[in-house]
Amino acid sequence: MAETNNNTMRNSSHWKSIYIFAHKVKRFPGLFRRTIWKVGKDDPRRIIHSLKVGLALALVSLLYLMEPLFKGIGNNAMWAVMTVVVVMEFTAGGTLSKGLNRGLGTLLAGSLAFFIRYLADVPGQIFHAIFIGATVFLLGAAATYVRFIPYIKKNYDYGVLIFLLTFNLIMVSSYRIDNVWSIGKDRISTICIGVALCLVMNLLIFPNWSGEELHKSTISKLEGLAKSIEVTVVEYFYDSEKQANEDDSSEDLISKCYEAVLDSKVKDETLASQASWEPRYSRCCRRIPWQQYAKVGAALRHFSYTVVALHGCLQSEIQTPMSIRDLYKDSCIRLAQEVSKILRVMANSIRKKHQFSVQILSNNLNEVLQDLDNALKSQPHLLLGSRNGRSRTPRTPKTPKTPTQATTAHNGNKLEEETRTSLSSIKSDCCSPVGSRLKEHSREQTKEGHGHKKVLRPQLSKIITTNLEFSEALPFAAFASLLVEIVAKLDHVMDKVEELGNMSHFKELRDDDENIVVTCERPKVNIVDNDLPSYGAE
Amino acid sequence: MAETNNNTMRNSSHWKSIYIFAHKVKRFPGLFRRTIWKVGKDDPRRIIHSLKVGLALALVSLLYLMEPLFKGIGNNAMWAVMTVVVVMEFTAGGTLSKGLNRGLGTLLAGSLAFFIRYLADVPGQIFHAIFIGATVFLLGAAATYVRFIPYIKKNYDYGVLIFLLTFNLIMVSSYRIDNVWSIGKDRISTICIGVALCLVMNLLIFPNWSGEELHKSTISKLEGLAKSIEVTVVEYFYDSEKQANEDDSSEDLISKCYEAVLDSKVKDETLASQASWEPRYSRCCRRIPWQQYAKVGAALRHFSYTVVALHGCLQSEIQTPMSIRDLYKDSCIRLAQEVSKILRVMANSIRKKHQFSVQILSNNLNEVLQDLDNALKSQPHLLLGSRNGRSRTPRTPKTPKTPTQATTAHNGNKLEEETRTSLSSIKSDCCSPVGSRLKEHSREQTKEGHGHKKVLRPQLSKIITTNLEFSEALPFAAFASLLVEIVAKLDHVMDKVEELGNMSHFKELRDDDENIVVTCERPKVNIVDNDLPSYGAE
Repeated sequence: MAETNNNTMRNSSHWKSIYIFAHKVKRFPGLFRRTIWKVGKDDPRRIIHSLKVGLALALVSLLYLMEPLFKGIGNNAMWAVMTVVVVMEFTAGGTLSKGLNRGLGTLLAGSLAFFIRYLADVPGQIFHAIFIGATVFLLGAAATYVRFIPYIKKNYDYGVLIFLLTFNLIMVSSYRIDNVWSIGKDRISTICIGVALCLVMNLLIFPNWSGEELHKSTISKLEGLAKSIEVTVVEYFYDSEKQANEDDSSEDLISKCYEAVLDSKVKDETLASQASWEPRYSRCCRRIPWQQYAKVGAALRHFSYTVVALHGCLQSEIQTPMSIRDLYKDSCIRLAQEVSKILRVMANSIRKKHQFSVQILSNNLNEVLQDLDNALKSQPHLLLGSRNGRSRTPRTPKTPKTPTQATTAHNGNKLEEETRTSLSSIKSDCCSPVGSRLKEHSREQTKEGHGHKKVLRPQLSKIITTNLEFSEALPFAAFASLLVEIVAKLDHVMDKVEELGNMSHFKELRDDDENIVVTCERPKVNIVDNDLPSYGAE
Repeated sequence: MAETNNNTMRNSSHWKSIYIFAHKVKRFPGLFRRTIWKVGKDDPRRIIHSLKVGLALALVSLLYLMEPLFKGIGNNAMWAVMTVVVVMEFTAGGTLSKGLNRGLGTLLAGSLAFFIRYLADVPGQIFHAIFIGATVFLLGAAATYVRFIPYIKKNYDYGVLIFLLTFNLIMVSSYRIDNVWSIGKDRISTICIGVALCLVMNLLIFPNWSGEELHKSTISKLEGLAKSIEVTVVEYFYDSEKQANEDDSSEDLISKCYEAVLDSKVKDETLASQASWEPRYSRCCRRIPWQQYAKVGAALRHFSYTVVALHGCLQSEIQTPMSIRDLYKDSCIRLAQEVSKILRVMANSIRKKHQFSVQILSNNLNEVLQDLDNALKSQPHLLLGSRNGRSRTPRTPKTPKTPTQATTAHNGNKLEEETRTSLSSIKSDCCSPVGSRLKEHSREQTKEGHGHKKVLRPQLSKIITTNLEFSEALPFAAFASLLVEIVAKLDHVMDKVEELGNMSHFKELRDDDENIVVTCERPKVNIVDNDLPSYGAE
């Protein structure tokens, strides 16, 4: 022990690194155990799936192990075992897509190979070999090239690969074996057995539907964004009251909610394409439009970019003073709550498969938006050209000014000639209720406003209390503007969700919720990445 | 002909749909030809890759076709053919990763299977069968479960699959065949032959390096974002001059540039993990830090969210009048150009593998940012509480006002007690030159500003020329604020690119560019999705 200490002293850095390594090795089993535990805890379906694969493999091995079964199939029973290993995916859709691709590819390749053999009965061994080589080369190049076509790559990549594999297998074997027909037949039948076993295991025993996963992840994305916006806005108006200790956790919450949406493209598309293989129907035996879910996902992604920008307002250190923010606090928070509410209503609509009233929602939204508009209009104004118009702000740092007064005044005059557009004329699709209603509302206001203005004008410049620098108002303006932008993008999301409702023939909305059939109300599973396309294998 | 016409008239809709279908069928060959042509034109390397696969397949078939080779390997030569079909990926990294995974998986599975066979020499056929079934079940479940561990899934998914496959093959075969050893040996040797052939084809003949693809796509992303920001800002200040005809194309250009960045997560990570298998070294024989490229990609993605929000400013219909925008046009455009320039400098730095001077760049950026800050400060101010402070804006629609004057005045007073932060104190890492310099600058200004203010105060409220409503200034304020946010995020990107430069030991910057070795200056290939993980197969 003393010796070790001496050694440690002599070349301590050397020993230290060994010590660290030993420590790592010692910690490894614990880390490994925790990881293993976490994988199962995150999603218990993984454990069930693993057991299912084990069971399927044991069952398919019986083909080889049991005498009567083996007699029928023989050595090629191995193909069935391989098929099970390769085709068993986590979700039913993935298994179906792979299984059908495998079956179809094998069938096509077999037919083509026999057709070519039938057409070209080349005499002579050498010519035969050359002929086989040339065919393999041509088909190999062609099939590989076809796999680059986006449509094929997305839906039939695995099928083309299996086609190439089987074709080569049969063509090359035909050189030495005469009963190629039996090879082809065995291959097709064993693959069919394997695929059938996989389908039974994955469609009938605790199935994991890609469609359900997509459905749930869409709902949880909507709810996550709702949460995210709500927390962001509340944080923005109360963050000075909170201390740093609490901030981190809520920041994490916000970013966790929207980050799940940001990078969901590949996952959504994979799930949608897997789900479209699944034999599940909505009521009235109509196919569920999974691709529309992917479109809702795309709209949500675009929506979330603005949420990220809004969240950025929290993090930037240039901040509008709290007193200014307080002026708009209520209307901003109400707008955010309304947006969150609409997101939650849409989530519920998808969950319970009933339609939602776009009209009512956009009326409410419109009201709250109008509220914010009024708040913004009724409060501070920008004084153009009043570079010297500072009153009671003695402690404010100012920058040195340059003499640009003339230009400013000129610009100020030009300003009046511009046609003014108000906050209400927010961009939205012509057919969208929010947009059209907003424009109506705005026109009404214009009339009203003119009346008031005439009365108020004489009081001009009487009450000038405080100046606020434009650069200070900037951050809040950005915040408010992004909130408004969020509303505009929400409109697009609402369109897509409404389309989804129409396409899936969601139930009409009734006055009482009790009539609605609740289909997917299990406790929410934490959606995790189980089902990205995995490598298949030999 | 007349009869057909009559028919058409009678049930025209029926005929119409047939006609449309016939038209589609007639158009299909043309469409197919165009798609085929486009796939090759988009990336000619695809044609080369297809020919390479064809050639590799033809070569590996010789193992079976040529008598002397066949004698050595026999019927199991088929495994080699299969290996080539499955392992030949588009990029060298993909092939290496799959090939090594396949080799390793086979080797491990073989060893384990023999070890188990050696340990447990079960007497009796039935017990033997039960033992095999149990082992297959256990190993199958365990291997499937392990594939859910994120680290394994990312790097060794294919290896585990092949492990499971080979293990089952050997275990199950051992029931009926005594010379299992020869099966295992054959399998390993044929797989080695197949993998070796693939590696020769993919590493030596026109190799497509994942690393180079990642390198190029990073450069093109940087340049795309630069273009995108530049066009967006110019559009913002000139869009009323342009007409709708031109708008669409430039809008497309903007969104195309940033959309390539937005959804790049999966592609980047796949390329980075494939590239880390590739045996390529930078100068001084140091490994190229591909994972750092992925980190740059992540920073760029976050950067691009703000670009999307900035682009959103173009599309929203609430717009600040041109006259107001004109006030800040020069400084905004200069800032955007500076940001674009920095992005391009970084792109060039990565392309030419030399370092760039963060100091100089951030000094320039700081200057331009200060310029915008000055422009914003020297121009309009927000007048708090001057609800009635309207002068020469007779045509502006106003909303009815509510009596909140008292609150406003109160808030105005509170405002003064707030510590003012200026645009300059933009958030950035402590160690970042931009951040620290900005703070210095801001402190200087504070001192200067105090002096000026005292002189200017007496002129208070003399020159009040024009009012601008807050709600009208909003969109521009958002635009300016997002531009500033972009600068803050650019800082993060610069950090990551600088780290990349340090980790890859980029050359030090010299005064003349001629010393720099240009390594990747081929004409830019349109980077397309060739290399997402594809299904392997049997």
